[in-house]
Amino acid sequence: MMQPVALNHASRLVNHGPTVLVTSAHAGRRNVMAAAWSMPVEFTPPRIAVVIDKSTFTRELVLASGHFALCIPGRVLADFTYTVGNSSGREWDKFDRHGVAALPGPVLGLPLVRGCVAWLECRRIAEPHSEAAYDTFFGEVVSAQADERVFSQGRWSFSDDNTELHTLHHLGGGNFAWPAASVQAKLLG
Amino acid sequence: MMQPVALNHASRLVNHGPTVLVTSAHAGRRNVMAAAWSMPVEFTPPRIAVVIDKSTFTRELVLASGHFALCIPGRVLADFTYTVGNSSGREWDKFDRHGVAALPGPVLGLPLVRGCVAWLECRRIAEPHSEAAYDTFFGEVVSAQADERVFSQGRWSFSDDNTELHTLHHLGGGNFAWPAASVQAKLLG
Repeated sequence: MMQPVALNHASRLVNHGPTVLVTSAHAGRRNVMAAAWSMPVEFTPPRIAVVIDKSTFTRELVLASGHFALCIPGRVLADFTYTVGNSSGREWDKFDRHGVAALPGPVLGLPLVRGCVAWLECRRIAEPHSEAAYDTFFGEVVSAQADERVFSQGRWSFSDDNTELHTLHHLGGGNFAWPAASVQAKLLG
Repeated sequence: MMQPVALNHASRLVNHGPTVLVTSAHAGRRNVMAAAWSMPVEFTPPRIAVVIDKSTFTRELVLASGHFALCIPGRVLADFTYTVGNSSGREWDKFDRHGVAALPGPVLGLPLVRGCVAWLECRRIAEPHSEAAYDTFFGEVVSAQADERVFSQGRWSFSDDNTELHTLHHLGGGNFAWPAASVQAKLLG
Protein backbone atom coordinates (compact mmCIF):
# COMPACT_ATOMS: atom_id res chain seq x y z
CA MET A 1 0.00 0.00 0.00
CA MET A 2 3.05 2.27 0.19
CA GLN A 3 3.49 4.24 -3.01
CA PRO A 4 6.28 6.58 -4.08
CA VAL A 5 5.64 10.27 -3.46
CA ALA A 6 7.09 12.82 -5.89
CA LEU A 7 9.95 14.60 -4.13
CA ASN A 8 8.39 17.99 -4.81
CA HIS A 9 5.45 16.81 -2.70
CA ALA A 10 7.61 15.49 0.15
CA SER A 11 7.09 18.60 2.28
CA ARG A 12 3.37 17.88 2.33
CA LEU A 13 4.00 14.76 4.38
CA VAL A 14 5.17 16.81 7.37
CA ASN A 15 3.52 20.15 6.59
CA HIS A 16 0.72 19.63 9.14
CA GLY A 17 3.07 18.92 12.05
CA PRO A 18 2.90 15.20 12.79
CA THR A 19 5.12 13.55 15.34
CA VAL A 20 7.70 11.45 13.51
CA LEU A 21 9.97 8.50 14.21
CA VAL A 22 13.59 9.18 13.35
CA THR A 23 15.44 6.06 12.26
CA SER A 24 19.13 5.58 11.70
CA ALA A 25 21.74 2.86 11.19
CA HIS A 26 25.50 2.49 11.15
CA ALA A 27 28.00 -0.35 11.37
CA GLY A 28 25.46 -3.00 12.23
CA ARG A 29 23.52 -0.95 14.79
CA ARG A 30 20.17 0.71 14.19
CA ASN A 31 17.79 2.85 16.17
CA VAL A 32 14.43 4.56 16.27
CA MET A 33 13.37 7.56 18.37
CA ALA A 34 10.30 9.79 18.45
CA ALA A 35 10.53 13.48 17.53
CA ALA A 36 7.74 16.03 17.75
CA TRP A 37 10.07 18.75 16.52
CA SER A 38 10.52 18.65 12.76
CA MET A 39 9.44 20.82 9.82
CA PRO A 40 10.04 21.30 6.11
CA VAL A 41 12.35 24.18 5.21
CA GLU A 42 12.32 24.05 1.38
CA PHE A 43 10.13 22.61 -1.38
CA THR A 44 12.81 22.16 -4.06
CA PRO A 45 15.25 20.73 -3.33
CA PRO A 46 13.11 19.05 -0.68
CA ARG A 47 14.69 19.80 2.68
CA ILE A 48 13.60 19.32 6.25
CA ALA A 49 14.84 20.18 9.74
CA VAL A 50 14.57 17.95 12.80
CA VAL A 51 15.74 18.34 16.38
CA ILE A 52 17.95 15.49 17.63
CA ASP A 53 19.17 15.92 21.19
CA LYS A 54 22.86 15.58 22.07
CA SER A 55 22.14 12.76 24.52
CA THR A 56 20.63 10.43 21.95
CA PHE A 57 22.07 7.30 20.36
CA THR A 58 20.31 8.41 17.18
CA ARG A 59 22.58 11.44 17.00
CA GLU A 60 25.67 9.22 17.10
CA LEU A 61 24.35 7.06 14.28
CA VAL A 62 23.29 10.04 12.14
CA LEU A 63 26.66 11.75 12.52
CA ALA A 64 28.49 8.52 11.72
CA SER A 65 26.40 7.55 8.71
CA GLY A 66 25.28 10.93 7.35
CA HIS A 67 21.73 9.65 6.93
CA PHE A 68 18.42 9.51 8.73
CA ALA A 69 14.81 8.69 7.90
CA LEU A 70 11.57 10.20 9.10
CA CYS A 71 8.81 7.62 9.49
CA ILE A 72 5.32 8.98 10.18
CA PRO A 73 3.32 6.77 12.53
CA GLY A 74 -0.45 6.48 12.42
CA ARG A 75 -2.70 5.99 15.42
CA VAL A 76 -2.07 2.26 15.66
CA LEU A 77 1.55 3.04 16.54
CA ALA A 78 0.79 5.49 19.38
CA ASP A 79 2.11 3.23 22.16
CA PHE A 80 5.25 2.36 20.18
CA THR A 81 5.86 6.05 19.42
CA TYR A 82 5.53 7.05 23.06
CA THR A 83 7.73 4.18 24.15
CA VAL A 84 10.60 4.84 21.75
CA GLY A 85 10.50 8.48 22.81
CA ASN A 86 11.22 7.40 26.37
CA SER A 87 13.98 4.81 26.08
CA SER A 88 17.47 4.68 24.62
CA GLY A 89 18.59 2.42 21.82
CA ARG A 90 22.04 2.16 23.34
CA GLU A 91 20.86 -0.64 25.60
CA TRP A 92 18.76 -2.73 23.24
CA ASP A 93 17.37 -2.82 19.72
CA LYS A 94 13.97 -1.17 20.08
CA PHE A 95 12.59 -2.79 16.93
CA ASP A 96 13.29 -6.28 18.22
CA ARG A 97 12.25 -5.54 21.77
CA HIS A 98 8.83 -4.30 20.73
CA GLY A 99 8.29 -6.67 17.83
CA VAL A 100 8.16 -3.94 15.19
CA ALA A 101 9.69 -4.73 11.81
CA ALA A 102 11.87 -2.45 9.71
CA LEU A 103 12.09 -2.51 5.92
CA PRO A 104 15.13 -1.25 4.01
CA GLY A 105 14.73 2.15 2.39
CA PRO A 106 14.96 2.21 -1.42
CA VAL A 107 17.79 4.74 -1.74
CA LEU A 108 19.79 4.69 1.48
CA GLY A 109 18.75 1.35 2.96
CA LEU A 110 17.63 3.01 6.20
CA PRO A 111 15.33 1.03 8.50
CA LEU A 112 11.76 2.14 7.74
CA VAL A 113 9.20 1.31 10.41
CA ARG A 114 6.55 -1.09 9.14
CA GLY A 115 3.06 0.15 9.86
CA CYS A 116 3.91 3.82 9.38
CA VAL A 117 1.85 5.85 6.92
CA ALA A 118 4.79 7.64 5.31
CA TRP A 119 8.55 7.35 5.03
CA LEU A 120 11.20 9.88 4.03
CA GLU A 121 14.88 9.00 3.62
CA CYS A 122 17.21 11.97 4.11
CA ARG A 123 20.86 12.81 3.66
CA ARG A 124 22.21 14.98 6.43
CA ILE A 125 23.39 18.39 5.29
CA ALA A 126 26.29 19.03 7.65
CA GLU A 127 25.59 22.14 9.71
CA PRO A 128 27.76 21.79 12.81
CA HIS A 129 26.73 25.15 14.28
CA SER A 130 22.95 24.58 14.10
CA GLU A 131 23.46 21.05 15.38
CA ALA A 132 25.53 22.26 18.33
CA ALA A 133 23.55 25.40 19.22
CA TYR A 134 19.98 24.22 18.56
CA ASP A 135 20.23 20.44 18.10
CA THR A 136 18.77 21.21 14.68
CA PHE A 137 19.74 18.90 11.82
CA PHE A 138 19.01 19.78 8.21
CA GLY A 139 18.50 17.07 5.62
CA GLU A 140 17.67 16.64 1.98
CA VAL A 141 14.89 14.19 1.21
CA VAL A 142 16.05 11.56 -1.30
CA SER A 143 13.09 9.18 -1.20
CA ALA A 144 9.48 9.51 -0.08
CA GLN A 145 6.65 7.02 0.17
CA ALA A 146 3.18 7.15 1.67
CA ASP A 147 0.22 4.86 2.26
CA GLU A 148 -2.15 5.51 -0.61
CA ARG A 149 -5.14 4.86 1.65
CA VAL A 150 -4.46 8.15 3.45
CA PHE A 151 -2.13 10.16 1.15
CA SER A 152 -2.52 10.44 -2.60
CA GLN A 153 -1.89 13.01 -5.31
CA GLY A 154 0.19 15.08 -2.94
CA ARG A 155 -2.47 15.40 -0.26
CA TRP A 156 -3.47 13.77 3.02
CA SER A 157 -7.09 12.67 3.18
CA PHE A 158 -8.19 12.04 6.74
CA SER A 159 -11.70 10.64 7.00
CA ASP A 160 -13.86 8.37 9.11
CA ASP A 161 -12.88 5.50 6.82
CA ASN A 162 -9.20 5.52 7.72
CA THR A 163 -9.01 6.65 11.34
CA GLU A 164 -6.30 4.14 12.28
CA LEU A 165 -4.05 5.76 9.68
CA HIS A 166 -4.41 9.32 10.96
CA THR A 167 -1.17 10.96 12.01
CA LEU A 168 -0.21 11.62 15.64
CA HIS A 169 0.40 15.09 17.08
CA HIS A 170 2.01 15.07 20.51
CA LEU A 171 0.35 17.27 23.12
CA GLY A 172 2.77 16.18 25.87
CA GLY A 173 3.15 13.30 28.31
CA GLY A 174 2.12 10.65 25.82
CA ASN A 175 -1.13 12.38 24.94
CA PHE A 176 -1.58 12.44 21.16
CA ALA A 177 -4.20 14.28 19.14
CA TRP A 178 -5.02 13.26 15.60
CA PRO A 179 -6.53 15.22 12.72
CA ALA A 180 -10.21 14.56 12.23
CA ALA A 181 -11.84 16.06 9.20
CA SER A 182 -10.60 19.10 7.33
CA VAL A 183 -12.06 22.34 6.03
CA GLN A 184 -11.39 24.13 2.75
CA ALA A 185 -10.63 27.75 3.58
CA LYS A 186 -11.62 30.61 1.29
CA LEU A 187 -9.58 33.59 0.18
CA LEU A 188 -11.03 36.81 1.57
CA GLY A 189 -11.43 39.77 -0.78
CA MET B 1 -9.75 34.60 28.34
CA MET B 2 -6.05 34.78 27.42
CA GLN B 3 -3.88 33.76 30.34
CA PRO B 4 -0.10 33.84 30.72
CA VAL B 5 1.68 30.56 29.98
CA ALA B 6 4.83 29.72 31.93
CA LEU B 7 7.78 30.05 29.56
CA ASN B 8 8.92 26.51 30.29
CA HIS B 9 5.57 25.39 28.83
CA ALA B 10 5.83 27.59 25.74
CA SER B 11 7.06 24.74 23.54
CA ARG B 12 3.80 22.90 24.22
CA LEU B 13 1.91 25.55 22.31
CA VAL B 14 3.55 24.54 19.02
CA ASN B 15 4.61 20.97 19.86
CA HIS B 16 1.73 19.42 17.90
CA GLY B 17 2.50 21.26 14.67
CA PRO B 18 -0.15 23.94 14.23
CA THR B 19 -0.02 26.46 11.42
CA VAL B 20 0.88 29.85 12.89
CA LEU B 21 0.56 33.49 11.98
CA VAL B 22 3.85 35.36 12.12
CA THR B 23 3.43 39.01 13.06
CA SER B 24 6.00 41.78 12.97
CA ALA B 25 6.29 45.56 13.17
CA HIS B 26 8.88 48.25 12.55
CA ALA B 27 8.87 52.01 12.07
CA GLY B 28 5.12 52.36 11.85
CA ARG B 29 4.52 49.37 9.56
CA ARG B 30 3.20 46.01 10.66
CA ASN B 31 2.42 42.69 9.00
CA VAL B 32 0.99 39.22 9.41
CA MET B 33 1.74 36.11 7.33
CA ALA B 34 0.87 32.44 7.69
CA ALA B 35 3.56 29.82 8.29
CA ALA B 36 3.07 26.08 8.42
CA TRP B 37 6.78 25.59 9.02
CA SER B 38 7.73 26.18 12.64
CA MET B 39 8.87 24.04 15.55
CA PRO B 40 10.29 24.31 19.05
CA VAL B 41 14.02 23.64 19.34
CA GLU B 42 14.60 23.98 23.10
CA PHE B 43 12.54 23.86 26.30
CA THR B 44 14.74 26.10 28.48
CA PRO B 45 15.52 28.70 27.40
CA PRO B 46 12.36 28.46 25.30
CA ARG B 47 13.43 28.66 21.68
CA ILE B 48 11.66 28.09 18.40
CA ALA B 49 12.50 27.99 14.70
CA VAL B 50 10.32 29.32 11.91
CA VAL B 51 10.77 29.53 8.14
CA ILE B 52 10.37 33.04 6.70
CA ASP B 53 10.92 33.25 2.97
CA LYS B 54 13.27 35.81 1.46
CA SER B 55 10.50 37.34 -0.63
CA THR B 56 8.33 38.32 2.32
CA PHE B 57 7.70 41.75 3.82
CA THR B 58 7.68 39.99 7.18
CA ARG B 59 11.34 39.14 6.73
CA GLU B 60 12.21 42.80 6.23
CA LEU B 61 10.35 43.80 9.38
CA VAL B 62 11.87 40.99 11.47
CA LEU B 63 15.41 41.81 10.36
CA ALA B 64 14.85 45.51 11.03
CA SER B 65 13.22 45.11 14.44
CA GLY B 66 14.81 41.91 15.75
CA HIS B 67 11.40 40.65 16.89
CA PHE B 68 8.50 38.50 15.73
CA ALA B 69 5.45 36.90 17.26
CA LEU B 70 3.77 33.58 16.58
CA CYS B 71 -0.01 33.75 16.89
CA ILE B 72 -1.87 30.44 16.76
CA PRO B 73 -5.20 30.67 14.96
CA GLY B 74 -8.18 28.51 15.78
CA ARG B 75 -10.70 27.23 13.28
CA VAL B 76 -12.67 30.48 13.18
CA LEU B 77 -9.63 32.13 11.59
CA ALA B 78 -9.15 29.58 8.79
CA ASP B 79 -10.12 31.97 5.98
CA PHE B 80 -7.98 34.77 7.41
CA THR B 81 -5.02 32.40 7.79
CA TYR B 82 -5.28 31.16 4.22
CA THR B 83 -5.69 34.71 2.92
CA VAL B 84 -2.67 36.19 4.72
CA GLY B 85 -0.60 33.27 3.45
CA ASN B 86 -1.42 34.32 -0.10
CA SER B 87 -0.97 38.08 -0.14
CA SER B 88 1.82 40.53 0.66
CA GLY B 89 1.71 43.16 3.36
CA ARG B 90 3.84 45.46 1.26
CA GLU B 91 0.77 46.70 -0.57
CA TRP B 92 -1.71 47.12 2.26
CA ASP B 93 -2.16 46.54 5.99
CA LYS B 94 -3.70 43.06 6.13
CA PHE B 95 -5.19 43.64 9.58
CA ASP B 96 -7.14 46.67 8.42
CA ARG B 97 -8.10 45.20 5.08
CA HIS B 98 -9.68 42.13 6.64
CA GLY B 99 -11.05 43.80 9.75
CA VAL B 100 -8.93 41.79 12.17
CA ALA B 101 -7.68 43.61 15.26
CA ALA B 102 -4.21 43.40 16.78
CA LEU B 103 -3.41 43.84 20.46
CA PRO B 104 0.04 44.96 21.68
CA GLY B 105 2.22 42.20 23.12
CA PRO B 106 3.11 42.57 26.80
CA VAL B 107 6.91 42.46 26.45
CA LEU B 108 7.78 43.56 22.92
CA GLY B 109 4.60 45.36 21.88
CA LEU B 110 4.23 43.16 18.80
CA PRO B 111 0.82 43.04 17.10
CA LEU B 112 -0.99 39.96 18.42
CA VAL B 113 -3.93 38.77 16.33
CA ARG B 114 -7.20 39.00 18.21
CA GLY B 115 -9.15 35.76 18.08
CA CYS B 116 -6.08 33.53 18.13
CA VAL B 117 -5.88 30.83 20.80
CA ALA B 118 -2.23 31.44 21.73
CA TRP B 119 0.44 34.10 21.32
CA LEU B 120 4.22 33.93 21.65
CA GLU B 121 6.48 36.99 21.43
CA CYS B 122 10.03 36.16 20.34
CA ARG B 123 13.36 37.89 20.05
CA ARG B 124 15.26 36.90 16.92
CA ILE B 125 18.54 35.13 17.62
CA ALA B 126 20.68 36.36 14.74
CA GLU B 127 21.78 33.38 12.63
CA PRO B 128 22.62 34.82 9.22
CA HIS B 129 23.73 31.50 7.75
CA SER B 130 20.57 29.54 8.65
CA GLU B 131 18.45 32.47 7.53
CA ALA B 132 20.24 32.66 4.19
CA ALA B 133 20.61 28.95 3.47
CA TYR B 134 17.32 27.60 4.84
CA ASP B 135 15.15 30.69 5.50
CA THR B 136 15.18 29.39 9.07
CA PHE B 137 14.95 31.97 11.84
CA PHE B 138 15.61 31.07 15.47
CA GLY B 139 13.98 33.01 18.28
CA GLU B 140 13.74 33.04 22.03
CA VAL B 141 10.23 33.18 23.45
CA VAL B 142 9.87 36.10 25.88
CA SER B 143 6.11 36.03 26.48
CA ALA B 144 3.44 33.38 26.01
CA GLN B 145 -0.30 33.44 26.46
CA ALA B 146 -3.10 31.04 25.63
CA ASP B 147 -6.87 30.85 25.73
CA GLU B 148 -7.71 29.04 28.93
CA ARG B 149 -10.75 27.45 27.30
CA VAL B 150 -8.47 25.25 25.21
CA PHE B 151 -5.03 25.37 26.90
CA SER B 152 -4.46 25.16 30.63
CA GLN B 153 -1.86 23.78 33.00
CA GLY B 154 0.60 23.36 30.17
CA ARG B 155 -1.68 21.24 27.99
CA TRP B 156 -4.05 21.61 25.06
CA SER B 157 -7.48 20.13 25.64
CA PHE B 158 -9.36 19.66 22.37
CA SER B 159 -12.92 18.47 22.88
CA ASP B 160 -16.36 18.69 21.34
CA ASP B 161 -17.04 21.65 23.62
CA ASN B 162 -14.45 23.94 22.06
CA THR B 163 -14.25 22.94 18.40
CA GLU B 164 -14.03 26.54 17.14
CA LEU B 165 -10.83 26.93 19.17
CA HIS B 166 -9.06 23.89 17.74
CA THR B 167 -5.77 24.64 16.02
CA LEU B 168 -5.30 24.50 12.24
CA HIS B 169 -2.88 22.14 10.48
CA HIS B 170 -2.32 22.96 6.83
CA LEU B 171 -2.61 20.05 4.42
CA GLY B 172 -2.00 22.22 1.37
CA GLY B 173 -4.01 24.51 -0.91
CA GLY B 174 -6.03 26.04 1.90
CA ASN B 175 -7.18 22.69 3.24
CA PHE B 176 -6.78 22.62 7.01
CA ALA B 177 -7.20 19.68 9.36
CA TRP B 178 -7.82 20.18 13.05
CA PRO B 179 -7.17 17.90 16.01
CA ALA B 180 -10.25 16.08 17.21
CA ALA B 181 -9.95 14.07 20.37
CA SER B 182 -6.74 12.66 21.77
CA VAL B 183 -5.51 9.34 23.10
CA GLN B 184 -3.26 8.64 26.08
CA ALA B 185 -0.54 6.27 24.90
CA LYS B 186 0.97 3.61 27.16
CA LEU B 187 4.61 2.72 27.65
CA LEU B 188 5.36 -0.78 26.33
CA GLY B 189 7.36 -3.12 28.52
